[in-house]
Amino acid sequence: MKTVGIGMLGAGIVGGSLIRRLVEEHAAIEAKTGLDLELRRVAVRDLEKARSFEIDSALITADPAAVVDDPDVRLVVEVMGGLEPAGEMVLRALRAGKPVVTANKALLAERGPELFAAAEEAGVPLLFEAAVGGGIPIIRPLSETLAGEQIERVIGIVNGTTNFILSRMAEDGATYADALAEAQSLGYAEADPAADVGGGDAAAKAAILASLAFGTWAGIENVFHEGIEKISKADMKWASELGYTIKLLAIAERLDGGVSVRVYPAMLPKAHPLATIRGATNAVFIEGPSIEELLFAGPGAGGEPTATAMLGDVIDAAREILAGAEVAPRIRFSPGELVAFESVDTKWYVRLEVDDQPGVLAQVAGAFGAHDVSIKSVLQEGRGEDATLMIVTHLAPEASQREARRAIEGIENVRSVASVVRVESPDV
Amino acid sequence: MKTVGIGMLGAGIVGGSLIRRLVEEHAAIEAKTGLDLELRRVAVRDLEKARSFEIDSALITADPAAVVDDPDVRLVVEVMGGLEPAGEMVLRALRAGKPVVTANKALLAERGPELFAAAEEAGVPLLFEAAVGGGIPIIRPLSETLAGEQIERVIGIVNGTTNFILSRMAEDGATYADALAEAQSLGYAEADPAADVGGGDAAAKAAILASLAFGTWAGIENVFHEGIEKISKADMKWASELGYTIKLLAIAERLDGGVSVRVYPAMLPKAHPLATIRGATNAVFIEGPSIEELLFAGPGAGGEPTATAMLGDVIDAAREILAGAEVAPRIRFSPGELVAFESVDTKWYVRLEVDDQPGVLAQVAGAFGAHDVSIKSVLQEGRGEDATLMIVTHLAPEASQREARRAIEGIENVRSVASVVRVESPDV
Repeated sequence: MKTVGIGMLGAGIVGGSLIRRLVEEHAAIEAKTGLDLELRRVAVRDLEKARSFEIDSALITADPAAVVDDPDVRLVVEVMGGLEPAGEMVLRALRAGKPVVTANKALLAERGPELFAAAEEAGVPLLFEAAVGGGIPIIRPLSETLAGEQIERVIGIVNGTTNFILSRMAEDGATYADALAEAQSLGYAEADPAADVGGGDAAAKAAILASLAFGTWAGIENVFHEGIEKISKADMKWASELGYTIKLLAIAERLDGGVSVRVYPAMLPKAHPLATIRGATNAVFIEGPSIEELLFAGPGAGGEPTATAMLGDVIDAAREILAGAEVAPRIRFSPGELVAFESVDTKWYVRLEVDDQPGVLAQVAGAFGAHDVSIKSVLQEGRGEDATLMIVTHLAPEASQREARRAIEGIENVRSVASVVRVESPDV
Repeated sequence: MKTVGIGMLGAGIVGGSLIRRLVEEHAAIEAKTGLDLELRRVAVRDLEKARSFEIDSALITADPAAVVDDPDVRLVVEVMGGLEPAGEMVLRALRAGKPVVTANKALLAERGPELFAAAEEAGVPLLFEAAVGGGIPIIRPLSETLAGEQIERVIGIVNGTTNFILSRMAEDGATYADALAEAQSLGYAEADPAADVGGGDAAAKAAILASLAFGTWAGIENVFHEGIEKISKADMKWASELGYTIKLLAIAERLDGGVSVRVYPAMLPKAHPLATIRGATNAVFIEGPSIEELLFAGPGAGGEPTATAMLGDVIDAAREILAGAEVAPRIRFSPGELVAFESVDTKWYVRLEVDDQPGVLAQVAGAFGAHDVSIKSVLQEGRGEDATLMIVTHLAPEASQREARRAIEGIENVRSVASVVRVESPDV
């Protein structure tokens, strides 16, 4: 009998879904894979809390170490979230030679190299398909199927909360505040939405995608990130008139000097495949010289899709256990250069509130030119005191764009730089 | 040194791309994966033919068995195509304990169970990521990442030639003949396009997708397939007016009585994610209770994308060789029922050339009704002798639709059933 005992750390939304699947679909999984996956131990924070699944209460403990150390547990699933005690428990399992399946992107982005080294030393897999893109198979395709591709760029919509908010703003003219409130009432956004709307969640996922795509470990500390909090109805409207939509993008790119990883809301041409990704859906777009363009899209969060991705990892790890061989790491991270965001070429859309005096555009254009930023297009709306200038620049180093912005803020007839949104499109 | 000797059977477009990649990217692959992939032997049909790659001529032979039997060859890549001698060589390699990587969908669809059994017996992998969807990672996600999902339906655009032709017809009003000629001149269609336009290529891929999605082997002989040769400009125009586009779909579906696998051109609502897949691009759309909807899209053919997919398999198989363990099959096929196409519920669009006599619609509606097929919508164009009726039915068994069609053909004022295209959309 090919039985593998499974220990769970955590039993919240994702953990609860996974437990139900392990129990209810036990026979179907065995028929399809030949594996008898047995739930042996579950650690929860609160023993009294009502659960969405029914299992023998003797399996439940409040002590995560008891799960990891249980000799019947041969494979550990970590769905506690957070950095500790999750990190300590993952290391403890790996060091005991037990494969670990986790969806904890924050932990991986923070301590990836240490955890992967522990897995390699123990010769067991550390799998994390659900850490990016929820139910979308993306980790395995990127790190295994595309192992032979010299990937050039990965662009992802990897945060469902912000994509829901931006979709509501773009399609229904909602304000940021109203769209956020709606996302919260639908359960797409947490009471404290900072990690989502501020771009931190996307930054952790961007770091993981970049590391897999380029084999160079990109720590979260190297990821520039900016959130969507400042995107206004006016920006959405102008984006649309200019042929763009605004999306929060996680970008990992191989540049001449090394790898760039960054997250910010960006204007994307409406014809780009990622521009069509609506609501809480996630998507990852991969570019390479041989595969050209690949798009993966699907549910980026939620208990059930995420549990499917984790179940795939559990089946994979269980097979490795039964094969009995030492597992070589599926991807190696070699030292590589990371490019500071300031030296990456970006393209800006800038909205300026100006006094409509003769010469103000000349002054603004002069400020861009003085910093070697050339202007692609200018639109003016309104006249007199209420005029607005919308400027889209050509590509120039981020640092130059910022210097130009500072110079523009010093021009007397410029009342304010109302907003800046980067533009991701082929530079013509 | 983690060296794995590779033998190639075939060196055409895909094989040539793969050989170039193995040579030129040898160092990059080693840095990323730790594997030293060494090309040891290449079998070609014609020793005199000019090649796109440069390798030591001593490596080249006209005898495929010499490649398979070479003791330095530990892994065999089959890119000869066709059923024989490819089938014999794949079996010979597997029986010698050598993993095989192939893109030969015709061979797999024809002899899958026998080949997989040989691989299982030898404890070595038989990998075929490139057999469906070219460069799109789809085999591995379907068979591994989604192993824990109770997949309900897989719909694919898996033939680039026909999608190119249908896209030109839909977007530019081209006739079928002109679009086919253009596809041939661009190299998207072969001089004899029968396997592509007739649906046979898509049927082999549908059989493979169905087998992986449902774990029930669906032989090619069980796949109903119909090609795109009869799709006319008029059908395209009417599809568009009704809110649809026409795509050649490979459908694998779990129904009450078993699994249905079928290929035909179908009207798809313009808002469906697959309706946006244009030109030679391929895409696979997967539906399941937990993952909801997943979309994979990318280049479905071509030497370079296909070589990337095969290289991913080569890297995977090389790792297995070095791990030294017996490999359990990643998916098991259990006996399962296949549903005959005649009993599957389909929805038809029927275009009739009729004499515009009072009562003809009543007769046509009566014929549908007599076979329990209810009508969803009717459109009439023209008057007098030249009238055309466009009818879209609700879901009814394919057999009933066909019987209704035969009855309609017998109505005196119906000059002809000009075309029938099935409709894939939620039935309202």
